[in-house]
Amino acid sequence: MSNFRPSGARLWDSLMEFSRIGGTAKGGCNRQTLTDLDAEGRALLQRQAEAAGATLTVDRVGNMVLTRPGRDPARKPVAIGSHLDTQPTGGKFDGVLGVLAGLEVLRALQEAGIETEAPITLVNWTNEEGARFSPPMMGSGAAMGIFTEAEVLAKQDSTGAVFGAELARIGWAGAADPAALQDLGAYFELHIEQGPVLERLGLDLGIVTHALAQHWFEVTVTGEEAHGGSAMTGRRDAMMAAAEMMVAIERLALACGARATVGRVTVHPDSRNVVPGRVWFSLDTRHDHEDDLAKLADGLRAEAAAIGARRPGIAIEVADFWISPATPFDAGLVGRLRDAAVSRGIPHQEMPTAIGHDAVYCARRVPSVMIFVPCHGGVSHNEAESITPEWAEAGLLVLADAVLATAGVAKE
Amino acid sequence: MSNFRPSGARLWDSLMEFSRIGGTAKGGCNRQTLTDLDAEGRALLQRQAEAAGATLTVDRVGNMVLTRPGRDPARKPVAIGSHLDTQPTGGKFDGVLGVLAGLEVLRALQEAGIETEAPITLVNWTNEEGARFSPPMMGSGAAMGIFTEAEVLAKQDSTGAVFGAELARIGWAGAADPAALQDLGAYFELHIEQGPVLERLGLDLGIVTHALAQHWFEVTVTGEEAHGGSAMTGRRDAMMAAAEMMVAIERLALACGARATVGRVTVHPDSRNVVPGRVWFSLDTRHDHEDDLAKLADGLRAEAAAIGARRPGIAIEVADFWISPATPFDAGLVGRLRDAAVSRGIPHQEMPTAIGHDAVYCARRVPSVMIFVPCHGGVSHNEAESITPEWAEAGLLVLADAVLATAGVAKE
Repeated sequence: MSNFRPSGARLWDSLMEFSRIGGTAKGGCNRQTLTDLDAEGRALLQRQAEAAGATLTVDRVGNMVLTRPGRDPARKPVAIGSHLDTQPTGGKFDGVLGVLAGLEVLRALQEAGIETEAPITLVNWTNEEGARFSPPMMGSGAAMGIFTEAEVLAKQDSTGAVFGAELARIGWAGAADPAALQDLGAYFELHIEQGPVLERLGLDLGIVTHALAQHWFEVTVTGEEAHGGSAMTGRRDAMMAAAEMMVAIERLALACGARATVGRVTVHPDSRNVVPGRVWFSLDTRHDHEDDLAKLADGLRAEAAAIGARRPGIAIEVADFWISPATPFDAGLVGRLRDAAVSRGIPHQEMPTAIGHDAVYCARRVPSVMIFVPCHGGVSHNEAESITPEWAEAGLLVLADAVLATAGVAKE
Repeated sequence: MSNFRPSGARLWDSLMEFSRIGGTAKGGCNRQTLTDLDAEGRALLQRQAEAAGATLTVDRVGNMVLTRPGRDPARKPVAIGSHLDTQPTGGKFDGVLGVLAGLEVLRALQEAGIETEAPITLVNWTNEEGARFSPPMMGSGAAMGIFTEAEVLAKQDSTGAVFGAELARIGWAGAADPAALQDLGAYFELHIEQGPVLERLGLDLGIVTHALAQHWFEVTVTGEEAHGGSAMTGRRDAMMAAAEMMVAIERLALACGARATVGRVTVHPDSRNVVPGRVWFSLDTRHDHEDDLAKLADGLRAEAAAIGARRPGIAIEVADFWISPATPFDAGLVGRLRDAAVSRGIPHQEMPTAIGHDAVYCARRVPSVMIFVPCHGGVSHNEAESITPEWAEAGLLVLADAVLATAGVAKE
């Protein structure tokens, strides 16, 4: 593989080229799923991957599957994937980096005249962001059996436009069965971290070993409205009870190593001089271990009951909203990434992803793994999202080495 | 005064008669200030008070002043007042009870052929509610020098309609100087409690000795947004800091006998899986004593600084929004109400008002006092607001006795 030289410079040029499709005045990118700009980006990727020897298949939910053949017909494809769609005020790297790093691997293979044992497949998943059509990760979810095709195709955006109709309109409704992607031999995804850890530690790379278990709740605190002039004795103040519950949530989460976020709060009736009769808030909890997360849920419910018991007339309901199991990535693929990073001398650490990615759904059916590279300040889903060419190259090289080690080289 | 017999039954009939002007399907009343319905209620009051021997003056902010002459030209008028305007989904008693009790006093005096030493003046203040035009208590505020006439007349409602133009349109823009009302000899106001205290204690009457001092704040907690998957270490979670601040607010308020309400909360960016970077909340604090309330404010600011110091990257700003001093009512008038309640054998207690009323502004310029009667469940500003005829009569009789004792009787 002496002449296999994936190019960080070419990857960077490619990132800048794609960022102009939907580029914003503030330097970000608005290329939402199933828009004309999405179609433009897809067409560009198709041309460039075909030029690198890949053949396109499109499935019924619009996932683009670009496969460069291997020598051994018995070997399942080794896939590299991510997504080209962005948030409305998205950046240039979230998702796009992973797809274009895969493109660069294809280009470098083609350039070096390398034939791999297993085919190499580049996947651009439809609607990872979930910004226009909710929920996120629909393309990988439909492929891996998390969602049915029918439910994905029927989703509507805020204007009432239907996913299936929009997919056809932009010309990317294919004929292939998305479930065929469950037959991949391996799945690699390079992504920006979307958190500040790697940059703070001065590392260029994170090898993602697992996805955290998540348990999201909706908490409703019910009391009774009263005038702001009423005596404190006899109040049934839903806000003060909610505040006490939030403090307990933080304490319990810290004690067991979980992550807990109260991101949304609504107060009723929302008047300066009325004691709130009802407070609703969202709660997002995450943990490396499902068992600990389940224990945290028990602890939260016990705390809610205790606060209710201490405060007459207050009831705190802790309702499940969404639960996602902890997802381990494939130990063998983690090992290949570790070997590649060590061999390249790239400063790295192993870490979990606390954020959903296509790779997390893939991991339920296919041996999968992820690579993180830092992004400045952890800023993402933001036009100011930024990375350095050096970080992008570090991710590319480790990805390329591990993919090649997994696919095997027939000849060069 | 053997034949001076204010009638609870006639007062009740009068309350029901006025409740039909703007009556709602749910049994409440929607007679907002400076609407056609307000004009209809004003005209009815004028006719009935004139029939009871009173003469109307209207001032430049629309306050109705109905005066039944006294014998002694040197005596300042003894006033009874409140307001006929209601909330959009208001009840039948808030404000109206006080005006119509005053009307009933005039009627009973007229019926009995009683001449008082001092004139008796019935006042219907413009826009007490502040629902259509904010702030509340504009008529009494303009009269007592809290607001200028010009600022009151220029206020706009949510549709852009102007107070002064609406006052002229409904035909109630008068020529009198509102400041003339600063020359009243005394001011009495009967009102529903708008709280649950009297009903819970089984009392028919509250003699209001003072208005609480109020200090309203706006609290802004600034941290930094982060993904809900990010590690707890290094977070600058504005919501968790805000919750800790709210818990401290409740603790400090309870410790010093204050009342504290966090009635409004907004969270930015308001997303389930984003650690809030900014939280804003309103804080309404009240106390019998200004000094204690000022100490509470100091304690809150110290607590905000301490939480900020314990949580790196968190700043808590506690900004003044509105401050109202404690307002004592007139001790002599309180004594007259006490004598009347004892003499009538009406179960009562002395208590503060924690809520703003026209009487609180009047008390800055004129010897003033208030009487509360219970309302069921403390419910007010609500179509379900309700009182019993017995409570209304208890308030009427104590009001009438104290007013007559203050005005003096020349002959009957």
